[in-house]
Amino acid sequence: MATRTKQPGKRSRGGNGAAGVKLEGLAKGVVQQAFAKRDPEVLVPARLLSNVSFNEKTRHVEMGDAKQSRSLFNYGQAKRFMQTLLVGSKCKELIERRKTASIRQIYYLSKHTIKGTNEKTFNDQAESDPIIEDLEVAIDSLREELHVFASNRGNLAGPITLVDAGNTLDCAAMGSAGYAVPSIVEPDVVQFKKNSAKFVLHVEKDTVWRRFYEDRFWEKHQCIISHGGGQPARGMRRLLQRMHNELKLPIFVLLDSDPWGYYIYSVIKHGSINLAYESRRMAIPDAKYIGVSAFDYERCGLSDNVKIELDATDIKRCKQIAEYPWFAKKKEWQREIKKLLSQGFKMEVEAMISKDLEYLTEEYVPMKLKDKKQWLD
Amino acid sequence: MATRTKQPGKRSRGGNGAAGVKLEGLAKGVVQQAFAKRDPEVLVPARLLSNVSFNEKTRHVEMGDAKQSRSLFNYGQAKRFMQTLLVGSKCKELIERRKTASIRQIYYLSKHTIKGTNEKTFNDQAESDPIIEDLEVAIDSLREELHVFASNRGNLAGPITLVDAGNTLDCAAMGSAGYAVPSIVEPDVVQFKKNSAKFVLHVEKDTVWRRFYEDRFWEKHQCIISHGGGQPARGMRRLLQRMHNELKLPIFVLLDSDPWGYYIYSVIKHGSINLAYESRRMAIPDAKYIGVSAFDYERCGLSDNVKIELDATDIKRCKQIAEYPWFAKKKEWQREIKKLLSQGFKMEVEAMISKDLEYLTEEYVPMKLKDKKQWLD
Repeated sequence: MATRTKQPGKRSRGGNGAAGVKLEGLAKGVVQQAFAKRDPEVLVPARLLSNVSFNEKTRHVEMGDAKQSRSLFNYGQAKRFMQTLLVGSKCKELIERRKTASIRQIYYLSKHTIKGTNEKTFNDQAESDPIIEDLEVAIDSLREELHVFASNRGNLAGPITLVDAGNTLDCAAMGSAGYAVPSIVEPDVVQFKKNSAKFVLHVEKDTVWRRFYEDRFWEKHQCIISHGGGQPARGMRRLLQRMHNELKLPIFVLLDSDPWGYYIYSVIKHGSINLAYESRRMAIPDAKYIGVSAFDYERCGLSDNVKIELDATDIKRCKQIAEYPWFAKKKEWQREIKKLLSQGFKMEVEAMISKDLEYLTEEYVPMKLKDKKQWLD
Repeated sequence: MATRTKQPGKRSRGGNGAAGVKLEGLAKGVVQQAFAKRDPEVLVPARLLSNVSFNEKTRHVEMGDAKQSRSLFNYGQAKRFMQTLLVGSKCKELIERRKTASIRQIYYLSKHTIKGTNEKTFNDQAESDPIIEDLEVAIDSLREELHVFASNRGNLAGPITLVDAGNTLDCAAMGSAGYAVPSIVEPDVVQFKKNSAKFVLHVEKDTVWRRFYEDRFWEKHQCIISHGGGQPARGMRRLLQRMHNELKLPIFVLLDSDPWGYYIYSVIKHGSINLAYESRRMAIPDAKYIGVSAFDYERCGLSDNVKIELDATDIKRCKQIAEYPWFAKKKEWQREIKKLLSQGFKMEVEAMISKDLEYLTEEYVPMKLKDKKQWLD
């Protein structure tokens, strides 16, 4: 039986968390500018593709130094200036009240009609979402530190005991869907208590995960199995990174042999282009891709039943991904993508079971884990 | 700490479960026909809109008695005959091996090239999915009983202790994302052990759920809070029904005031039109819709900020839903849908917090729960 706490929903950090202090600093800066009779402005690092690059040393997709101004007395910037301060004040309030809100809830909390006008502070959520991202980069805090949550998605199981919101949870005994990974997994919410897992195997979908769960892969191989329900949400990525950094667990990724699988791997490993500022807290440059590889068709003697023809979009995406700076210099990935394109078909992880229900978990993955030469970096 | 079992992934029911016996019966019928020199056929209740009706007594969307034949010696039916027996034999195998598989895995397990031809048993999953549904109705078993799983989706929290795959789980202490509801929640997998909840509050999305979780609604009101991550998956619907039937818990549903919300409620309460055969095991005719109501705009003194204009699709869907037999005869629903259409806007549950972050959980829902007159049946 897990331990109960009095206020399991609340975050333990008070109103003076780092992000709260930084938000206050941002507001103080604006006030000081006003008192100094300068035009109040907020500087936001530019979230533009032109300001994103691959850092060869950290192996992160990173943002550059370009900044954009949000100035109160600039007709084209005044609205975003107001929106930035408004969302900032709502986040400050959340931090002080020890509450969290979804990005949709931030939108509703911040939306109102400006006194004496018909003008709304926000017309729809498409306006408030980028402001949250602006704030994250402006004060160099993750949205989770601003007490804003994304969706809960992803589960894991394995011989690890963690504390989540005060509840002690043995992830080897959390029922048949595993431990549900929340959106916010920062150390003030989720702590690692005991771990005897030797590595993490991350898969894309819950249906694949269930195959590994049911076949007791996690028990036989003393590992954690996790899935992200597709492109992993921020909570799952952050937790994988924390398990890698803090518990020194190798992260192995098993995905479909197609551009979507490559892209998921790319994001887990190096960070995403759109949200490059979060790489430092989310990316896992040492993660390894263990399959499915285009070479597995011959290597494993698979039948035609596993083939799914590439369409024009697949081919285009493959070519784009091959040109990502972090794939462009890797011979193994160039060889992999070339093989996929020349074969003309993609393969899903689940297709491996066309050999046998347990082939995936009893033969394929153990073979992959054993032979480092088959890993893609 | 939860209790561990030796084989948490395995289902406890053996190869002689009811569905296994029924599958054997289906196969025996075919063999007997052959020995009696009759054309082998399988009869499948017709899954057609014309064969679906609303049973006023049980308040379920139900299938009628019309049947379709799958005959081996009929050119148009032979392939589906073969596919039905093939998928049936794979399910039988799963049951005997005490394993489960996703519908995608069933597709890969069943797909092969027929000896001496280039013909495949299945060309894509769109062919095998309906066969699984055919089998469910043909032998009157849920797919979960055939050991086929859908996706895991949905979470819950509250003062209930259940056993899932041998793990004893206190759902009041499962971390900040709650207990992850698996796809298969049949009594051989999930058992209720202890319950002190007085009712269930079911919401659509995880972000709304988190509001209730964090504001400790489940503790203050001694209830279970659940969400289905959108249209609830089969596992969540079945678990809600089991909590209602076995634990006598009232089920309250809180959804967006729009046709999508109405439809989710309709499926939870009466069953779905597409899968009418499952109503008996999934529908909860006594579930109540407590909000959001179109009348709440005036009732709660909400601001214009909550309004989202109806588009043409919304209006069309509203009119369709108003004509569903189970809504058509209910004055309260006719009045509700009319109000929505005349106001010309929809409202989301999350919009309630535009008043205040805790308005939804501290005022709105408690007010709704207290005043039965505001419930929609």
